[in-house]
Amino acid sequence: MIISKDIWKPMGLKMPRNIVDKLYEKMDEKKTPLCIGLDPVMEELPRPLLQEIQEVMDEHGSNYELNPELGYLASAEAIKRFNFAIIDATRDLVPAFKPQSAFYEKYGHWGIRALEETIKHARKKGAIVILDAKRNDIGKTATAYAEAHLGRVMLPNGKYARSPDDADFMTVNGYLGSDGIEPFAKVANRDGKGFFILAKTSNKSSGELQDILISDGEEVYMKMAKLISEWGKEGIGESGYSNVGAVVGATYPEEAKKLRKMLSHVLFLMPGYKTQGASAEDLTEGFDENGRGAIVNSSSGITGAFSNEKFAERHPELAKPEKFAEAARQSTMDSIEDINSALKKAGKLPKSWRI
Amino acid sequence: MIISKDIWKPMGLKMPRNIVDKLYEKMDEKKTPLCIGLDPVMEELPRPLLQEIQEVMDEHGSNYELNPELGYLASAEAIKRFNFAIIDATRDLVPAFKPQSAFYEKYGHWGIRALEETIKHARKKGAIVILDAKRNDIGKTATAYAEAHLGRVMLPNGKYARSPDDADFMTVNGYLGSDGIEPFAKVANRDGKGFFILAKTSNKSSGELQDILISDGEEVYMKMAKLISEWGKEGIGESGYSNVGAVVGATYPEEAKKLRKMLSHVLFLMPGYKTQGASAEDLTEGFDENGRGAIVNSSSGITGAFSNEKFAERHPELAKPEKFAEAARQSTMDSIEDINSALKKAGKLPKSWRI
Repeated sequence: MIISKDIWKPMGLKMPRNIVDKLYEKMDEKKTPLCIGLDPVMEELPRPLLQEIQEVMDEHGSNYELNPELGYLASAEAIKRFNFAIIDATRDLVPAFKPQSAFYEKYGHWGIRALEETIKHARKKGAIVILDAKRNDIGKTATAYAEAHLGRVMLPNGKYARSPDDADFMTVNGYLGSDGIEPFAKVANRDGKGFFILAKTSNKSSGELQDILISDGEEVYMKMAKLISEWGKEGIGESGYSNVGAVVGATYPEEAKKLRKMLSHVLFLMPGYKTQGASAEDLTEGFDENGRGAIVNSSSGITGAFSNEKFAERHPELAKPEKFAEAARQSTMDSIEDINSALKKAGKLPKSWRI
Repeated sequence: MIISKDIWKPMGLKMPRNIVDKLYEKMDEKKTPLCIGLDPVMEELPRPLLQEIQEVMDEHGSNYELNPELGYLASAEAIKRFNFAIIDATRDLVPAFKPQSAFYEKYGHWGIRALEETIKHARKKGAIVILDAKRNDIGKTATAYAEAHLGRVMLPNGKYARSPDDADFMTVNGYLGSDGIEPFAKVANRDGKGFFILAKTSNKSSGELQDILISDGEEVYMKMAKLISEWGKEGIGESGYSNVGAVVGATYPEEAKKLRKMLSHVLFLMPGYKTQGASAEDLTEGFDENGRGAIVNSSSGITGAFSNEKFAERHPELAKPEKFAEAARQSTMDSIEDINSALKKAGKLPKSWRI
């Protein structure tokens, strides 16, 4: 047993609603399991947006070489504007957004402020936020990571406040074992949050370690999956799914199928759709018979639609940098249709999503 | 081959000096492989320091409940003052400092600013800085992490600047395979930096995944170790060691011995000394016959000495919260003596360190 659901009782508090139940409610409202990844790469942001920022900076006579801090500030501003435009253009269509921490960390505390503002903006609009950070450590360091991104933090006067970024879910790497997971489960169960642990990742070389055959004939990722199932037992909500989920690459449909069968209460976060080559059909393997059990992420497939060749063939009028937000909206609608058609074909489209 | 050393040539640049060579030079200067971990936990910071901050906040009529941002700001200030005091009290004694990112992330962008200032302060004093962040991802996300903490970042005008935190080394989790390592190696080789990959971690449950026997009779951590050795071949410096190192828990001396034999060019970052129960004798297994091959971390054993019972027995006059910096200095000297005695006993004390 990792942590009892009853920990909130002595405090006279009501246990917060299971975050997976909330997520399913949002999915039903939007009729899609699609989550938009916010991974802003400066090199790929629309030029007009960068020029707009650069003009303001130039007006103030800024010189990044003399003062790189102004450059970080301007970069963070570009990221924030880009994200806000994407969120505003798509928030009525999707249940969740997933910012990837790396792209914000690049610009130090300026970038992290843009991340905090992005999370706040998305949550204010009613969306669920998954912070993709793949954190991992043990004992009090793991507790600090969980508190940092899902929980509460102590202030110098001894009182506690919600952490500045306060996401709904985060991602975690479980290579360190139970000592590295319990602190996340403890904070998540207490504060009504959740997290996804890497099981089978979407990349080509994921097999180097994850597919190694153990002496009992199973792969390492299967062993990890069993640990994930065990770690999540205390956090199962009304939906039958736990707040401890698994990252399962959509690029490995065979493995996803195997894992779906085995992990009846584990929600999958599935990266790899489109950009990494996974089709909507591949995705369906991660869903159960009722169309539950997976949330699908698409990042640059949506946010970079304006510069995508295939998208341009279908929507030439939107394939322009100055139309990046409208292109993202169109690409979101296309993706939802693509995924729901595949779910329908597989006999897995939830009843209430049918039009 | 991951990345050729020659990538700097077309740019007409001189390759930066191997960071491991620099680290050994610092170790020789200080005659110790000891690194001080900076893991500031608000709950454990010396009370007088917190009171000092709180008084300033109270003077300004701050109310954290109305305005939690002021609470984060005050927390970050406490962390910064604590770290600067520790660095100033010990920097003449040790070659390196290792801040653990989690404890800074807790306070959002305010905390990350304190981390940046800490790194800058330590480097200005000539120390090597290892950012313990255990990052991991693939492709362009891994590149973003490497750029964020070791490299250069693009600004809106298309030019590049050093990243705001700019550490010398970082730690990385290799569970995602080569796709997750190559980007770190590329940035590290280009910019004269290094990184340590988790092999056998110091925690109790590390065996759940890392000790699993593979069908060929080896453990997962041994497989990871071989990958680390392979990944590091391009980054070997004059010392014979590579800028791609391994995290090997001092709490597992048998495993450390096995790994030391196998990984002749891999530098070990060894956590677990004292606080997690590893002795100086255990540590020696990570060193080669010339006393090279390992850097040893101690965090709360040094920064929390002022409140440690065993320390109080030996140095009652320093076991007071208001003497936290002097206590840290004394504990550093004690640890250096302890480790060097054990190295001497094992016949591994480098010649130039003998007094």
